[in-house]
Amino acid sequence: MIQKLIREIKRKNAPVVVGLDPNLSFVPAHLIEAARETVRANESSAPEDDPALQAAAEAVWQFNKAIVDSIYDIVPAVKPQIAMYEQFGIPGLRAYDRTVKYCREKGLIIIGDVKRGDIGSTSASYAKAHIGRIEADERQIPVFDVDFATVNPYFGTDGIEPFVEVCNACDKGIFILVKTSNPSSGEFQDILTQDGTPMYELVGQKVREWGEASMDGRYSNVGAVVGATYPEQGERLRKLMPNTFILAPGYGAQGATAADLSAFFDEEGSGAIVNSSRGIIAAYTKGSYRDFGPAGFAQASRAAALDMIEDLRGAIADRRE
Amino acid sequence: MIQKLIREIKRKNAPVVVGLDPNLSFVPAHLIEAARETVRANESSAPEDDPALQAAAEAVWQFNKAIVDSIYDIVPAVKPQIAMYEQFGIPGLRAYDRTVKYCREKGLIIIGDVKRGDIGSTSASYAKAHIGRIEADERQIPVFDVDFATVNPYFGTDGIEPFVEVCNACDKGIFILVKTSNPSSGEFQDILTQDGTPMYELVGQKVREWGEASMDGRYSNVGAVVGATYPEQGERLRKLMPNTFILAPGYGAQGATAADLSAFFDEEGSGAIVNSSRGIIAAYTKGSYRDFGPAGFAQASRAAALDMIEDLRGAIADRRE
Repeated sequence: MIQKLIREIKRKNAPVVVGLDPNLSFVPAHLIEAARETVRANESSAPEDDPALQAAAEAVWQFNKAIVDSIYDIVPAVKPQIAMYEQFGIPGLRAYDRTVKYCREKGLIIIGDVKRGDIGSTSASYAKAHIGRIEADERQIPVFDVDFATVNPYFGTDGIEPFVEVCNACDKGIFILVKTSNPSSGEFQDILTQDGTPMYELVGQKVREWGEASMDGRYSNVGAVVGATYPEQGERLRKLMPNTFILAPGYGAQGATAADLSAFFDEEGSGAIVNSSRGIIAAYTKGSYRDFGPAGFAQASRAAALDMIEDLRGAIADRRE
Repeated sequence: MIQKLIREIKRKNAPVVVGLDPNLSFVPAHLIEAARETVRANESSAPEDDPALQAAAEAVWQFNKAIVDSIYDIVPAVKPQIAMYEQFGIPGLRAYDRTVKYCREKGLIIIGDVKRGDIGSTSASYAKAHIGRIEADERQIPVFDVDFATVNPYFGTDGIEPFVEVCNACDKGIFILVKTSNPSSGEFQDILTQDGTPMYELVGQKVREWGEASMDGRYSNVGAVVGATYPEQGERLRKLMPNTFILAPGYGAQGATAADLSAFFDEEGSGAIVNSSRGIIAAYTKGSYRDFGPAGFAQASRAAALDMIEDLRGAIADRRE
């Protein structure tokens, strides 16, 4: 699967993934109003679900659909953050499912940002649900069926192995949290161990080892999440994990710039994909993209994605020099 | 909320939580067959969902309902593991929701074993969805609405704070993973830091600090997950976190015994609640409980729960001596 991602990044010349994290505050009022109308007109559809949650989920789905229509030809991948759907309960998760299926129709690679992880037997269920297949009624059924899932490493090997097994069985991938993009990520991740190695490097070493059983060309299907907001750590991890593809969140709204990202790529300009969520999907609320207005939110997203792609091409060119 | 849990443990004299982790392999064949019939007879209900997933979810729900009916008067709490529902997609999550609501009707305290955790803004969505309320259409709506959620600490303070805020706003609680019960939990959690402190103790210290803003009597609404399979670490953590209530998984099927758990309790015999999942809900498949047979699976669960309660009362009596 990682080969497929690398191929699509090259083909579109865009190491960019668009984070589909549709906070309701980003969704233009006209979409929210239209979604309320849709739910009102279709009252009997799911009487057990609160109509306000149904309307929120419908608005999020329509918002995503317009953005995907506007960017699918210029970016290789999307990363829906499941928390933004889960918050609206069953209707929200239905919108997640619909979004995933729509992105697949559009030829996009889908990174399910689920950050699951548990003891072995439980991780196996998460792995099958998100990137594999579930056996029921003597059939193998894909459930949420994304291409990559993000995974939390806190449980160690036995929480990770079931994901790696599913990667191998179904040609899928994972990105394991190594150094996260948030301000307090250093509290545990940067702690120095007895020989002076920071915890995130120990996790990085393990990610490299776990990935050895899942190579797919130069890179492994077992990748790493490394926050673009931590360029020094990114540079060290790039060297420590030469065959580990990096998913780098934190560009844009969280403060990282293209210059911060240069060392995340390999000498061929591959090896990493950079995520932006709010910076793209809520572009119409910010800076010069405001001119698009709420009605032009999807076009604003396209303009912001094009600017980000251009910016990152510069970072990769620097890396190659 | 932690006071309420402590009160219910005392009232039922049972520091036991039943893990509702219904792997399909535990569900008796007659329930699975009946669930298939129910789905077949109700074909039009959710055409977008695979009927095999619908049948699995229906079987799980009927299984849970029978077990809850059989144990609700003797245990204070249940802990549904959301992965076991999420694996069946939307119908599975509907079964989770139904289970939670049913347990609430029966007066049980519900620990949603969701192990969520992310950067701050995303953790806020998880916290609102699972233990708080979501604002939609100018209303505050409870979504999955459990009493406690389990949370992963890897992101540090800013991934935890949104959960603590919701605990305080809605009188709910969380249990943060400190030392997990699985065999490889030591890979990162036991790593010694520069002054010789293991990582799990650093996490424990933080859990204590995070909990100071959420005290509810002697204990905080911010609790800790400490695996019953690690009695030495449990003893150290009990001392390090004197006001942190412990959720201890790993009893029974994972190998921990009542003797291992004695040091998890405080000198009054409070301070911890012990989980068993398979050992109770799949009791009819094991040892002497086999005599109940598949038709008596719920009665077998009750017998196993009573045995566990008796066993733990012994551990607490030892502690008090």
